[in-house]
Amino acid sequence: MSGQWGKSVKYSIFGESHGRGIGITIDGLPPGIKLDMNFINYEMQRRAPGRDEFSTKRKEGDKVEILSGYFNGYTTGTPLCGVIFNENQNSIDYDNLKNLARPGHADFTGKSKYLGYNDYRGGGHFSGRITAPLVFAGAIAKQILFNKGIQIGSHILSISNVFDSYFDGVNIKNDLLIDILKKKFPVVDDAKGEEMKSIILKAKEEMDSVGGIIEAAILNLPCGLGEPFFDSIESNLAQLLFSVPAVKGVEFGSGFEITKVRGSQANDMLYNENGSVKAKTNNNGGINGGISNGMPIVFRVAIKPTPSIARLQNTVDMNTCENSEITVTGRHDPCIVLRALPVIEACAAMSILDFV
Amino acid sequence: MSGQWGKSVKYSIFGESHGRGIGITIDGLPPGIKLDMNFINYEMQRRAPGRDEFSTKRKEGDKVEILSGYFNGYTTGTPLCGVIFNENQNSIDYDNLKNLARPGHADFTGKSKYLGYNDYRGGGHFSGRITAPLVFAGAIAKQILFNKGIQIGSHILSISNVFDSYFDGVNIKNDLLIDILKKKFPVVDDAKGEEMKSIILKAKEEMDSVGGIIEAAILNLPCGLGEPFFDSIESNLAQLLFSVPAVKGVEFGSGFEITKVRGSQANDMLYNENGSVKAKTNNNGGINGGISNGMPIVFRVAIKPTPSIARLQNTVDMNTCENSEITVTGRHDPCIVLRALPVIEACAAMSILDFV
Amino acid sequence: MSGQWGKSVKYSIFGESHGRGIGITIDGLPPGIKLDMNFINYEMQRRAPGRDEFSTKRKEGDKVEILSGYFNGYTTGTPLCGVIFNENQNSIDYDNLKNLARPGHADFTGKSKYLGYNDYRGGGHFSGRITAPLVFAGAIAKQILFNKGIQIGSHILSISNVFDSYFDGVNIKNDLLIDILKKKFPVVDDAKGEEMKSIILKAKEEMDSVGGIIEAAILNLPCGLGEPFFDSIESNLAQLLFSVPAVKGVEFGSGFEITKVRGSQANDMLYNENGSVKAKTNNNGGINGGISNGMPIVFRVAIKPTPSIARLQNTVDMNTCENSEITVTGRHDPCIVLRALPVIEACAAMSILDFV
Amino acid sequence: MSGQWGKSVKYSIFGESHGRGIGITIDGLPPGIKLDMNFINYEMQRRAPGRDEFSTKRKEGDKVEILSGYFNGYTTGTPLCGVIFNENQNSIDYDNLKNLARPGHADFTGKSKYLGYNDYRGGGHFSGRITAPLVFAGAIAKQILFNKGIQIGSHILSISNVFDSYFDGVNIKNDLLIDILKKKFPVVDDAKGEEMKSIILKAKEEMDSVGGIIEAAILNLPCGLGEPFFDSIESNLAQLLFSVPAVKGVEFGSGFEITKVRGSQANDMLYNENGSVKAKTNNNGGINGGISNGMPIVFRVAIKPTPSIARLQNTVDMNTCENSEITVTGRHDPCIVLRALPVIEACAAMSILDFV
Repeated sequence: MSGQWGKSVKYSIFGESHGRGIGITIDGLPPGIKLDMNFINYEMQRRAPGRDEFSTKRKEGDKVEILSGYFNGYTTGTPLCGVIFNENQNSIDYDNLKNLARPGHADFTGKSKYLGYNDYRGGGHFSGRITAPLVFAGAIAKQILFNKGIQIGSHILSISNVFDSYFDGVNIKNDLLIDILKKKFPVVDDAKGEEMKSIILKAKEEMDSVGGIIEAAILNLPCGLGEPFFDSIESNLAQLLFSVPAVKGVEFGSGFEITKVRGSQANDMLYNENGSVKAKTNNNGGINGGISNGMPIVFRVAIKPTPSIARLQNTVDMNTCENSEITVTGRHDPCIVLRALPVIEACAAMSILDFV
Repeated sequence: MSGQWGKSVKYSIFGESHGRGIGITIDGLPPGIKLDMNFINYEMQRRAPGRDEFSTKRKEGDKVEILSGYFNGYTTGTPLCGVIFNENQNSIDYDNLKNLARPGHADFTGKSKYLGYNDYRGGGHFSGRITAPLVFAGAIAKQILFNKGIQIGSHILSISNVFDSYFDGVNIKNDLLIDILKKKFPVVDDAKGEEMKSIILKAKEEMDSVGGIIEAAILNLPCGLGEPFFDSIESNLAQLLFSVPAVKGVEFGSGFEITKVRGSQANDMLYNENGSVKAKTNNNGGINGGISNGMPIVFRVAIKPTPSIARLQNTVDMNTCENSEITVTGRHDPCIVLRALPVIEACAAMSILDFV
Repeated sequence: MSGQWGKSVKYSIFGESHGRGIGITIDGLPPGIKLDMNFINYEMQRRAPGRDEFSTKRKEGDKVEILSGYFNGYTTGTPLCGVIFNENQNSIDYDNLKNLARPGHADFTGKSKYLGYNDYRGGGHFSGRITAPLVFAGAIAKQILFNKGIQIGSHILSISNVFDSYFDGVNIKNDLLIDILKKKFPVVDDAKGEEMKSIILKAKEEMDSVGGIIEAAILNLPCGLGEPFFDSIESNLAQLLFSVPAVKGVEFGSGFEITKVRGSQANDMLYNENGSVKAKTNNNGGINGGISNGMPIVFRVAIKPTPSIARLQNTVDMNTCENSEITVTGRHDPCIVLRALPVIEACAAMSILDFV
Repeated sequence: MSGQWGKSVKYSIFGESHGRGIGITIDGLPPGIKLDMNFINYEMQRRAPGRDEFSTKRKEGDKVEILSGYFNGYTTGTPLCGVIFNENQNSIDYDNLKNLARPGHADFTGKSKYLGYNDYRGGGHFSGRITAPLVFAGAIAKQILFNKGIQIGSHILSISNVFDSYFDGVNIKNDLLIDILKKKFPVVDDAKGEEMKSIILKAKEEMDSVGGIIEAAILNLPCGLGEPFFDSIESNLAQLLFSVPAVKGVEFGSGFEITKVRGSQANDMLYNENGSVKAKTNNNGGINGGISNGMPIVFRVAIKPTPSIARLQNTVDMNTCENSEITVTGRHDPCIVLRALPVIEACAAMSILDFV
């Protein structure tokens, strides 16, 4: 009922992992935006599987075909529909699982909701694959924001218990975001990145999976954006972020840690910097009362370990309700945090574009 | 632009802390709901200030007058508008602060957004007082849900570094929620509650404030509710929760901690319990793929320390941008976590009512 | 479920004819609009009953009290809630009608929809009285549009079979609209107005009622507003107009008459007038493909005869379904067209404000 | 910005006449609806061009490819996207017209709105061709309604000044709608149909076009559907109908004619028919106070003459604003009323499905 999102720009998503195609219609883009297809493809490739040893061996072209709203290299202003036609699905991998609910997945809840009519192959509409259209939409949103000087980036803050350096909420600069974007393993501290890789590969070896935290920043956002109620920047962003499969937590600024300090430490003191108002700290993550204050927006997203693991797990047969066991074979990611980065950034771009 | 929220039931909120009145219009309630005014008042009193030493001494009647949609003791099915007329405002407290942005508050962002035309007295539309209409709406939503057997409750999980026992996501029962609801200081472990009280009073003494975490549970929710995209239970709830002033983080199930374990530990194994599907653990907080799985919904919300503190803080004069200092006098809460509980529960009730 | 309307500015209406109060919350107004209360009152009085012999003798103060969103004479940018507290209701007039469905009214459909819980007194939420908040909202919208040079006006085009002169869709000027606005009986041709008055008074004498057509114009609207699908200017306006009780038809430009001519006559030829594109005729009513073309927007609205008449009518008892008879006593308008003008203009103002 | 429509079922439309494809995403369909593809194709063919001498010779396959939301013959409950890939476009026909605004078309308004970036070929997103996805969506909606016993049908009420018999708003039966549906020229009175055909062919011969009125009926709708404000059945339906290119008027029941009679004639008297409430007349078109009363819903839609005519017309060059002349060559319909019937019915089906 709610594959649609957005106010000034409206998105309508569709598709199943192993169906004919997946896509998104973007309604409300301004006319005359020149789309940089190389950038869009770069973003799509960041999310695409099969790039390296940390992700599934599935190769998905993830090539977007634009059906409408795009003419002679520019957006027309009418609804832009982008479709990725599916290919290379190994549906056979899933047939034997049809009635066994994979733990941690939406098989059981999906069957409950859709009364058994949903396309179960590869998770169907619940598949992480459906985030590919989000990345497409996000890439367009990013371009529009970039033209306005607003930049969005993210890094892997943690894998299991290994933590990268946190973003400096006060002093973070564009250059850092660009540096990270270019890295194959996007962390600030590459030594920590090596540790993370080991953890992922070890989990993979042991037919298990790991999760992690993504930290993202939005730079150069003007102050005064957002709404006090129901559409605070936090509300708007969180709604999108919690739509991404595997996200179980979202926090802004100091987040849960802010509950452990006193008001005198938590409050961000304001001062005059060359005639504009700045804060000495950024515990509020660039947002007060739901509204941007001109400081960087900083937020973190908890990504759970990939639920698809090749180990034997207890479950039930959804038809008979009998206890059963399952081993999720097929090609799966030992860790999806890496591939989730462009999705989280896409959500941020879509959210912010809604405000500017 | 977005003081409206909801799909099947729509809410439209309005009001400023020191204006003529604050209220909410609730559109889409079914006709024929008998409203329990005692329960509504009980909920209003849970949020109301001035009840004890842990909250501000301001006395706000918080008595809701229903203008429409309610006839002969029942909802009519037409829009129900509830108004709380303001009284006992001490506007004089705020006049000297008019141009000084209170750190941690929305004074600066509000002025930026509304170009200086917003009602600055007591935070205006950004005041925590505007959550009173939410509690009113939530109390009605709770009654409707309660008639369907769905129960919502919460406790103070932490104040600063002192933690109450966590809810047991698998075995939590109605009775516990009712027990906590009756307590003046709503925790599971009263000894921990005493520690928390000391921390609050100490902060108060030192003209400072503290924050904490609220943990909430929704029991007996049928499985199959929620949407895979954009309106997952997490998305829907988080959108509301992040509209509540002072909320900086939201997590479901194991939340951020789930990133530290492996998939084999994070996945909730399913089994047959008397013919229905249950999970042995509840790391996913009762939600898979955005959809309820029949287990308790468990979530936590980070509440920052009250930003209003009587200590001297650095800030700027918003008119001149000059550096300045401020002491926020007036009657303030050393900790708003206690009063935030019914607000968080109200959000949960409004969100869940949207799905059932 | 749908007392809310609007995209950029959102309206939420509430109230019953004989309840505590009726009102509207307007969300999304820009901050800093100075409200002209005299103009608002003038508009309210145009709709108010009891002004002359053509309308009911009921006296309703229709004084709007603004509860929020308005500070020191200006809109704040936060939700503005305006309430009219009810007074002078003669509920006794309706008590004997409680179970008898008044023909042409919504008594039967209202009871069906709301399962008998709706406030039946005076039509409750279906009462024409609920258009008073629309006029309030429209008066604010008109002021904002007027500041942008856009003007909205209307006249009584017909009462029964007596027709005033039609607006000249090509050459209509602001001055004409202002002239009509000042008239007690707002027609172009006062002689025709006298005929109309006779018809109304004759119907009144005979305890009957008459209807008519309102023609409205929107001047100086820039071209390029509206959407090709689902939110064409016609779609948007018609949605509002058909919410006004008693409206049974809406047409733009030549409307139904355009079906009787050929394309070569219907097409509005374009030409260059001092460097801007004008049309020689305005059969399309200022709209092509749902989008304004810079010519005056002209539309007509059919208002049915007041259903409340003192004659004996056949009906049923809604409780027993038995055949019965009814005479609708009380104070009613023999013709509501006159009082509907500001309501129709309010709809036009709200609709156009949504686009600019 | 508004190619999306709907509350319980949401539609998102996209496409340009000569682009890669046109389509619609339907979000919120219940799972488990078995789609009758023959019926869908039948509906598509009713709208498709090239069937007979009364419409353009263009042959458009109008074959819908379903990309998602449909699995093993049933709807899944997830968004269903249907695409019609374009073929057989004669873009060359339009190239010479690129800068000349076709009178009666949206060329000038489209260029104004989209700053010249819109796809001008064949009218682009404004083309009547974009109603094909509506017919697809309507065909699905009709099936769901038909399963609930609700039937929708329409006839050509008039072409120019020749009128078919009106529907009998009280006694109209399913059988009549089915009879008309089977006719190649869908009128009640075939003799009148022959007159209409002559008129169309004569206009065609003279390189001109004609318009007409479509009358539609919705049978067996239960009473109690619709909303008093902003989403009355009339509002909801009119919003959709006025999105259809060429529609300039919409009226319900007696429509504009009701303004010419007195209240005593206009009011539909109620009586008990075998225990249920019926009306003796149906001047209100089955709707009171915006809500269905159990009588047939009857409405009429004014369709203007096809603006594309091969005659020489005055216009301007949109780039230079210079006066110019145009002859719209290419393959056009002398009358689109016939092809518009399934579109109008589709709108009715989409609207009613939103309520049930």
